[in-house]
Amino acid sequence: MFQKVLVANRGEIAVRVIRALREMGIGSVAVYSTADKDSMHVQLADEAYCVGEAKSAESYLKIDQIIAAAEVSGADAIHPGYGFLSENAHFNEVCRESGFEFIGPSPDAMEKLGDKNTARSMAIANDVPVVPGSDGLIEDDSKAIETANKIGFPVLIKATAGGGGKGMRVAEDADSLEKALTQARTEAQAAFGNGGVYLERFITSPRHVEVQVIADQHGNVCHLFERDCSVQRRHQKLIEEAPSPNLPVEKRNAICEAAVRMIRGANYSNAGTVEFIVDQNDDFYFIEVNARIQVEHPVTEMITGVDLIKEQIRVAAGEKLSFAQDEITVTGHAIECRINAENPDKNFMPNPGMINKFYAPGGLGVRFDSHVYGGYCVPPHYDSMIGKLIVHRPTREEAIATMRRALAEIQTEGISTTAPFHDVVLQHPLFVEGKHDTKFVERELMGN
Amino acid sequence: MFQKVLVANRGEIAVRVIRALREMGIGSVAVYSTADKDSMHVQLADEAYCVGEAKSAESYLKIDQIIAAAEVSGADAIHPGYGFLSENAHFNEVCRESGFEFIGPSPDAMEKLGDKNTARSMAIANDVPVVPGSDGLIEDDSKAIETANKIGFPVLIKATAGGGGKGMRVAEDADSLEKALTQARTEAQAAFGNGGVYLERFITSPRHVEVQVIADQHGNVCHLFERDCSVQRRHQKLIEEAPSPNLPVEKRNAICEAAVRMIRGANYSNAGTVEFIVDQNDDFYFIEVNARIQVEHPVTEMITGVDLIKEQIRVAAGEKLSFAQDEITVTGHAIECRINAENPDKNFMPNPGMINKFYAPGGLGVRFDSHVYGGYCVPPHYDSMIGKLIVHRPTREEAIATMRRALAEIQTEGISTTAPFHDVVLQHPLFVEGKHDTKFVERELMGN
Repeated sequence: MFQKVLVANRGEIAVRVIRALREMGIGSVAVYSTADKDSMHVQLADEAYCVGEAKSAESYLKIDQIIAAAEVSGADAIHPGYGFLSENAHFNEVCRESGFEFIGPSPDAMEKLGDKNTARSMAIANDVPVVPGSDGLIEDDSKAIETANKIGFPVLIKATAGGGGKGMRVAEDADSLEKALTQARTEAQAAFGNGGVYLERFITSPRHVEVQVIADQHGNVCHLFERDCSVQRRHQKLIEEAPSPNLPVEKRNAICEAAVRMIRGANYSNAGTVEFIVDQNDDFYFIEVNARIQVEHPVTEMITGVDLIKEQIRVAAGEKLSFAQDEITVTGHAIECRINAENPDKNFMPNPGMINKFYAPGGLGVRFDSHVYGGYCVPPHYDSMIGKLIVHRPTREEAIATMRRALAEIQTEGISTTAPFHDVVLQHPLFVEGKHDTKFVERELMGN
Repeated sequence: MFQKVLVANRGEIAVRVIRALREMGIGSVAVYSTADKDSMHVQLADEAYCVGEAKSAESYLKIDQIIAAAEVSGADAIHPGYGFLSENAHFNEVCRESGFEFIGPSPDAMEKLGDKNTARSMAIANDVPVVPGSDGLIEDDSKAIETANKIGFPVLIKATAGGGGKGMRVAEDADSLEKALTQARTEAQAAFGNGGVYLERFITSPRHVEVQVIADQHGNVCHLFERDCSVQRRHQKLIEEAPSPNLPVEKRNAICEAAVRMIRGANYSNAGTVEFIVDQNDDFYFIEVNARIQVEHPVTEMITGVDLIKEQIRVAAGEKLSFAQDEITVTGHAIECRINAENPDKNFMPNPGMINKFYAPGGLGVRFDSHVYGGYCVPPHYDSMIGKLIVHRPTREEAIATMRRALAEIQTEGISTTAPFHDVVLQHPLFVEGKHDTKFVERELMGN
């Protein structure tokens, strides 16, 4: 087992990984930007190294600085968290070449799955359903119309290197397709340095369901059931839950087995998430694989009892999975709300600044994963999430009641948060019945 | 169901009850002393009434003031929490006579079980093992020696109205018995206004094991398995856990069934705890019934998933238990550490005062039940507990690791707490092996 692990991240996920390391008796090394010198991850780690200025590009994305910190500290592995360099196959490779185990999949698996078009081909090869779409990238706009007609309008244009909704457009008909293609290509080129796009059938009223998978380096692959992340705003997840409400048991089994096939086929090890959209008939279609731990991993931890970060560390160290598939069972229902320092009354404008007084919610069924405290200043340089509020109760109805109670308890004097917005979602009849889709927030709550 | 409930308590248990009420959609009424006006229970309740000065006798023990607050607020029930008036049968009766449901057992059951000697007779009548001892109170000292010889020295002298170790003495032989009797009587008279004492065999190396029971008003009684509370200092519990380590399954079943017999025999409804001592042969002996919710109830909630406070409220409102015995199963292992504002380096001297900066532990497997926050001043007038840190993990070993990690995270700038002391206990080989007894802390860690 590793003696010391460097956490190449900040915020709550850095705290989360440091907690796991401490419980395992492994030394922890934090890296931080100048803006984060008072952050909780710096305080909780055994050692901490400044890797640069506030801007991510000058600190958390600085591969050479992070490798230098790993060398100076004598770490033997690097945990990338999520975001930043976590899905950067080059970083993954540099870590390994520099003698540090990368806590995640191989660079090869990461690279293949990171390209959406390649991933789609792999899904097809592994008998994982995909949304009907173009056979590879759209090279020629005239051919695009032909393909779109075959798939059936409306169609979705997606960037092959994409994520977070960038380089994505819907075209309702042939007339709008050409313009949308140009827009998507331009946006993708600017965001990812890769203007490649492809087409998919646009699913109306889709739900986002994803399967947590973990694999060791000995060929063992297990799923830890699915999560529903349909509460989104502008393709950003706001609320996640497990299990998925209203998913019939045979579909649950099928989607979990498909995810395992995908991961096995990719020769993937470590934790990963296979994302799907589910349509009104509960048919599911592969979207992509997230080759890292995800923000919403705690809901899976709550219903299965498995510590996913510890399991990531163990399998990266060459250990076998500590459980077999039939030992993974689901207990109760878990929901996570991402608490962002944003003002929901002002179109979710980021709202960084000093938290003068802070009260964290607690009590039965409540887990709070956060790096903030009273007197902490939320810096403006990074994403606005200040914590994840997770509840776990025997039933979904009780979990909603506990979440509403816990949301009401959060006090962050000095900054606004999205907590009141979550409470609105949790009361909405469509959410209460589990009949919401990924358009629900924008359609029902934003008036879009 | 009740529309509004008054919580006749303060601190974390008031917060705990208010949380349950909020989740059930029931209005909550707090009462507070002048010293507690900024306390979290006041902030979280829907309404709050000042019931007097800082001293408990002038506020939280003032029956007339509490009843007045219930009347003014229009509450229809009163939850007493633990401590203060929670086991006061007179208060219980006054509540009911004033038209407020008392969330607890009947005054009659409370009164009978509150008298240790009567409770012992009830145990015998219900085939619940008791420590061999005197047949009733010791009226005559010469007869005491005869009884003690029959029981076998060393013997324990206990006050019939006792609690918290007051009026309790060990006599090693006949010579020391007379003096010890006098001391115990004097102390009991002073503490409880009742000098009655009785004798029991003194169990060397005893463990404290208690069974959580809950009964409705329709004759249904369920146990929720046992807790081990052997980590004590001066008869005060410091760490509690569930299930009890190293208790053989046949003994676990027997002790739980004995507790159910006791509660059924007492015609008891609502939540209660049947306390036992367990000797080196895993034989168990009844000590007493706590006719209220206990500080350590969360460990049972974690392993069973049952919200005990909600269940208390439901059965007090006349509902049937929401589960049957065979629906109660144990998942994982839970540990609770009582975090007190005391200085373990100065013989646990209470250490009230301002908490300038506060960081609550969190993350996977961690529950924190507390009423404090950064900027809160711990008043000197009440018990020194500032929170309960509870962990729940699949195994005891993992629970210990998580607890140690969480203890290290607590920050209470301005006051000392017992968190570092708990960490010493959690590392001790006897605790790690689950081979500690109720004398362990004083013998191994205090040099007594």
